[in-house]
Amino acid sequence: MYVVHVAAVVWGPKEPLVIQEICVDPPQKMEVRLKILYSSICHTDLGCWNGTNEAERAFPRILGHEAVGIVESVGEGVKDVKEGDYVIPTFNGECGECKVCKREESNLCERYHVDPMKRVMVSDGGTRFSTTTDKDGRSSQSQPIYHFLNTSTFTEYTVLDSACVVKIDPNAPLKQMSLLSCGVSTGVGAAWNIAKVKEGTSTAVFGLGSVGLAVAEGARARGASRIIGVDANASKFEKGKLMGVTDFINPKDLTKPVHQMIREITGGGVDYSFECTGNVDVLREAFLSTHVGWGSTVLVGIYPTPRTLPLHPMELFDGRTITGSVFGGFKPKSQLPNFAQQCMKGV
Amino acid sequence: MYVVHVAAVVWGPKEPLVIQEICVDPPQKMEVRLKILYSSICHTDLGCWNGTNEAERAFPRILGHEAVGIVESVGEGVKDVKEGDYVIPTFNGECGECKVCKREESNLCERYHVDPMKRVMVSDGGTRFSTTTDKDGRSSQSQPIYHFLNTSTFTEYTVLDSACVVKIDPNAPLKQMSLLSCGVSTGVGAAWNIAKVKEGTSTAVFGLGSVGLAVAEGARARGASRIIGVDANASKFEKGKLMGVTDFINPKDLTKPVHQMIREITGGGVDYSFECTGNVDVLREAFLSTHVGWGSTVLVGIYPTPRTLPLHPMELFDGRTITGSVFGGFKPKSQLPNFAQQCMKGV
Repeated sequence: MYVVHVAAVVWGPKEPLVIQEICVDPPQKMEVRLKILYSSICHTDLGCWNGTNEAERAFPRILGHEAVGIVESVGEGVKDVKEGDYVIPTFNGECGECKVCKREESNLCERYHVDPMKRVMVSDGGTRFSTTTDKDGRSSQSQPIYHFLNTSTFTEYTVLDSACVVKIDPNAPLKQMSLLSCGVSTGVGAAWNIAKVKEGTSTAVFGLGSVGLAVAEGARARGASRIIGVDANASKFEKGKLMGVTDFINPKDLTKPVHQMIREITGGGVDYSFECTGNVDVLREAFLSTHVGWGSTVLVGIYPTPRTLPLHPMELFDGRTITGSVFGGFKPKSQLPNFAQQCMKGV
Repeated sequence: MYVVHVAAVVWGPKEPLVIQEICVDPPQKMEVRLKILYSSICHTDLGCWNGTNEAERAFPRILGHEAVGIVESVGEGVKDVKEGDYVIPTFNGECGECKVCKREESNLCERYHVDPMKRVMVSDGGTRFSTTTDKDGRSSQSQPIYHFLNTSTFTEYTVLDSACVVKIDPNAPLKQMSLLSCGVSTGVGAAWNIAKVKEGTSTAVFGLGSVGLAVAEGARARGASRIIGVDANASKFEKGKLMGVTDFINPKDLTKPVHQMIREITGGGVDYSFECTGNVDVLREAFLSTHVGWGSTVLVGIYPTPRTLPLHPMELFDGRTITGSVFGGFKPKSQLPNFAQQCMKGV
């Protein structure tokens, strides 16, 4: 059954979202149709709306990827969720069958891993959204509306691959659970699953936005004894303290590079650093702020720049490592339900 | 007691080594004087002799860092070796006392880790070599001769920090043991200690010089089932086979990038790649030739280039890691004696 409902559709870069009626097709094989209950906004939605990256442009489109919904119907073969289940969509899916899903090391499912270029469903290359009005509300021939990040949540109803839907406890605080779709999982997971922060260690977090604060919270939960927050906005320190930040550095207050300051106050550098700003010059500071021999830098930002890494190959010989983190390294279906439970318990 | 002996001294970039008499001072506190029995030549000696890197230039100087020697005398406080012991010098030392030496993760001793800029002894900033003749053999005022890579082995006698001297079994085949000072340890250790190659995995080795061949041998010893050698010189494949190389790729024979070929023949990429050429474009190929999710690239080459890493930050988000390896990650005093024993047993 087709359902006609309201969505916020973006018709072009930086154009105001149009609240309009759309058709939402029924879920196909291994797909799920959700009624969205809550949706939050992430900077990645904004980046796509801005249209900075030409390759990602696809309009009309429904953005949004942090949400909570209730399963309205399921397509053929879907067994792990059913009508009425409370779920969160995840932009990085888990098919459970591919080479990567079957191994522990990675959450980058071969079929459903996040791909900002993807705009259609995996199974048939089609869309499940369409409209018969143009952006000004005039009737027009039916045209497809593109999907976004495996999710598209700025809509009353959406269709996802079941690989991108995770069941949660119906008693969970639903509004907050929306953040597990991206920001909180990305930050906490970077500390838990990628850096694997250990008790008594030191950490530097570059950029205290919502993801950076989640990193700090994740590091604190794992027993980090020192969490240095770095941000050019001094007001972030107050929020940071609530999440476990113990020291604050504002680069604007320094006459030396941040990495030098961090090395001085930590006796050689922190054990872990997290880059949450998406700026490659900050990336260099984050890399150099860790200790020789075991320092680990985890990238959590998104880098919309043509610039390559501002690191010399010989700088990789000091025993420091650097790696990126997608969705905090969580395998969504296998690991997120337990993480949601931990969040409910306040861990 | 000062001893006067013969050394091969380099007086300037690309100048022929002068075989001449030099004075070798007695070992100071925590230093050891060796009689060198065998010394081999490594490309790093050549790089310094070429003088390509201005910062490393220091003449006159005694090069050489792969060797086997016998302890002639020891300075105050040296307890772990004594006169008559057979030893190998190691350019990367181990003081056993610093923060890094006390942890498992790294072999980059804070006091004695390799430093190509270093030209004098750590304890007093002086040299233990001097000469009273100039490069043409004419008498001159006594002048210091600089040390190289904590070792300087192109000489009958040398003085090292005891942190850079490792005792070996006197029954070991001494000539071959020289290679444990650098090439073999660097290559085998990169596979064992840095990549931690596991049984049944796949590996690509870029550059089949002596270090690359040692990497292959190390991977074979750890049970890698497929070892792909990449070299522009086809004759290297014959030598490679003896060390466990199972497949050979000559980039000159391809019409596509090497990483693409490797991904095709391995179903997505190898588990580990090793870059042993020192070329940053090859580094990019090595990085991209590993599998999404867990691919690990280890740098073993030296990169005498002003160029930074030709990798985009977003390319670090595919779960591939890249790191450098110094002396194969071996802590010389703690781990090399056992490695020498394993080599003697042919492991």
